[in-house]
Amino acid sequence: MGDYKKMWQDLNMDIEKHDILCEALPEQFGDIYLTQENRPEAMNYFNYVVAEIHGARIMELEKYKKEGGKVVGTFCVFVPDEVILATKAIGVGLCSGSQFWIEDGEKILPRNICPLVKAFTGAKIGLTCPYFQSCDMIVGETTCDAKKKAWEIMDEYIPVHVMELPQMKREKNIKQWEDEIRIFINRMEELTGNKVTIESLKKGIDICNGKRKALKRMYDLRKNTPSPISGLDALLVSQVAFSDDPERFIEKTEELCDELEERVKELKPNGKKRIMVTGTPMALPNWKLHSIVEGLNAEIVVEETCTGTRYFENEVSTEGDTIDELVRNMAERYMDINCACFTPNEGRVEDIIKYVDEYNVDGVIYYNLSFCHTYAIEYEKIAKALKEEDIPLLKIETDYSEEDTGQIKTRVEAFLEMI
Amino acid sequence: MGDYKKMWQDLNMDIEKHDILCEALPEQFGDIYLTQENRPEAMNYFNYVVAEIHGARIMELEKYKKEGGKVVGTFCVFVPDEVILATKAIGVGLCSGSQFWIEDGEKILPRNICPLVKAFTGAKIGLTCPYFQSCDMIVGETTCDAKKKAWEIMDEYIPVHVMELPQMKREKNIKQWEDEIRIFINRMEELTGNKVTIESLKKGIDICNGKRKALKRMYDLRKNTPSPISGLDALLVSQVAFSDDPERFIEKTEELCDELEERVKELKPNGKKRIMVTGTPMALPNWKLHSIVEGLNAEIVVEETCTGTRYFENEVSTEGDTIDELVRNMAERYMDINCACFTPNEGRVEDIIKYVDEYNVDGVIYYNLSFCHTYAIEYEKIAKALKEEDIPLLKIETDYSEEDTGQIKTRVEAFLEMI
Ligand code: SF4
Ligand code: SF4
Repeated sequence: MGDYKKMWQDLNMDIEKHDILCEALPEQFGDIYLTQENRPEAMNYFNYVVAEIHGARIMELEKYKKEGGKVVGTFCVFVPDEVILATKAIGVGLCSGSQFWIEDGEKILPRNICPLVKAFTGAKIGLTCPYFQSCDMIVGETTCDAKKKAWEIMDEYIPVHVMELPQMKREKNIKQWEDEIRIFINRMEELTGNKVTIESLKKGIDICNGKRKALKRMYDLRKNTPSPISGLDALLVSQVAFSDDPERFIEKTEELCDELEERVKELKPNGKKRIMVTGTPMALPNWKLHSIVEGLNAEIVVEETCTGTRYFENEVSTEGDTIDELVRNMAERYMDINCACFTPNEGRVEDIIKYVDEYNVDGVIYYNLSFCHTYAIEYEKIAKALKEEDIPLLKIETDYSEEDTGQIKTRVEAFLEMI
Repeated sequence: MGDYKKMWQDLNMDIEKHDILCEALPEQFGDIYLTQENRPEAMNYFNYVVAEIHGARIMELEKYKKEGGKVVGTFCVFVPDEVILATKAIGVGLCSGSQFWIEDGEKILPRNICPLVKAFTGAKIGLTCPYFQSCDMIVGETTCDAKKKAWEIMDEYIPVHVMELPQMKREKNIKQWEDEIRIFINRMEELTGNKVTIESLKKGIDICNGKRKALKRMYDLRKNTPSPISGLDALLVSQVAFSDDPERFIEKTEELCDELEERVKELKPNGKKRIMVTGTPMALPNWKLHSIVEGLNAEIVVEETCTGTRYFENEVSTEGDTIDELVRNMAERYMDINCACFTPNEGRVEDIIKYVDEYNVDGVIYYNLSFCHTYAIEYEKIAKALKEEDIPLLKIETDYSEEDTGQIKTRVEAFLEMI
């Protein structure tokens, strides 16, 4: 990384503590990513993004803020980025994925909650995440008990706007979500001083759909046997999508897909088992499960997670001549995401079975961040459905620590032998 | 207990397994309750209810069903009993509080979720709870992730109607809850074939208010120093409130209060520390914390829990000439309950501080069922507020097992010495 000390100081960060993170990350990345063989050339851009994760991108945010722009942090695929873009703000996904932040999080939160929630809380209170420090506001949602209650604590450190996500999917719930989007529009207008117009909202929708298309294209390419890109690399692209400049991200991902298309022409069978991961999100730099699985004779070809298909599937329609119509379109698209926070959540079973077929999957790994109740309980239903379809399934419940890596490896190994 | 074998068989229960529970309960009750000295005479009724918990009351339910009546199970103080009564159904609270059911619950649910949810699920799938077996339908709600997702599993065993409780307390959320109550009215009308009328709903409200008044009267009496009733006995009365015939319950509780009023006249200081318990519910027969605390030199004088003040505080107004007005009154009363499932939930801090004063409390014990995220995370806010007010606070996170009893006792002992 370049010398960003001054910037970090201005962001009121804990420099000493942050240095520890800055030292560990490149090593971790090198071990997991740069040791992969025969990576696409176009991954270089994504390598660069990681190398500059607390540098170049933060510089951009800071520059934007100096010009009067606003930066808003989000934690969930339900928060409509379209609205953020329509008010000329920058949205950055903050779902933290490192063990590094857990200790600070546990100072203020119970130990037995999801690592993701502990990590983002720790990142804020420990002053070790420059994205957090750049944010003018963060946008929470009520997707799970842990996040819902963590916002109250977070609100003491940074302004939080909470969107109430409905818990069911009836027509009235879609209307409720429309209303939450309208409230969010007002709040964003207030924050930025920029009014949302039909044009700005359509433009926001177009950009977000562009990201969705690019990611969808990459995922479609993974349907080839073997996949022209490793699961690790695909995951990285998905993770970068949350915080990168959207238009540059689209461009770089399309470039990557062009290259992957060339590769597809000369693919040779590699004998690797094709694995789907389904479950909870994997926020940067959480590469734990992927690196274990791909360290064995297997490739991950699809993630039915919030850092996977749930992020890009289904576009928002731009049809309509009023903001209300566009809001309705957004509400419909977002309420179509099959997250375990809904009851019931039948669509997720269907998605998984569909992906098994489309991606030609040999086995499914159910990835459950520790103490995530909704996904952990929903496992029972998924397991039943997959059993009926004769699809092999392995459940891994884990956090960000390295303690159980050996044990997970043994279990995955046994699973791969079995399928 | 009398000979109810035939009835239990007809209820399709697992008789052998249920026998184990039937043998353990009287012993547990004897040890904890009957060893108390100088109990009010009027507690005999509540002793009888426990002795006959799987007998006499179930007979009543079965008799009612034979006459065409319906029985509905509930799990939460947010479900409006008024509606159940207005459709001439019997409502029984099913929040299960015994370790006995955990093993069966864990067959189908993750181990690391709240014991209450595991227990009620285990009670149903193990066929060991006659209340469950008597129910024509159960009514769930979306108060927490664990319950929300457990209903989906439960629905495979018994029809479940889920009410979506809003997660915030804005005006629009109160309207949403009105709507959920209207949907519930329809469902209950369908189930029972009885239409809700202004009269039947007002009568339902009156009965529920009568229960609230009786419990409130008992709690007011506990404000005396010393309290004329032990925390254990008061808890039992609250627990019985959830499944007993409401009119009989009111009568018996008022009788108890008459006796307590006499006792108040001749109270002598007992030097015991006055403790408030705040937090998660204690469903029958969960007497664990109370028996530990009252086995030491302390008395529990108030519970800010769902089996305490949250159950009876605030009445539903009967003013209004339309069902919609009454529904509005109900929605307002219920949405005024300060459960940690709401964000924010400022009212709870205020309640606790008010009760400390009203009940002349020396120290507060924060009771958190293991893995209940909303209460566990909310602890931080409560602890901060109580610290500012110089109110001693002890957090106990526990489940239904006996393993940590010794450890909890030691911690409570140290706490009592300190305050
Ligand atoms: S993984 Fe589960 S508990 Fe964690 S933030 Fe997501 S939904 Fe909440
Ligand atoms: S104690 Fe907590 S987790 Fe358990 S049922 Fe109640 S709210 Fe849910």
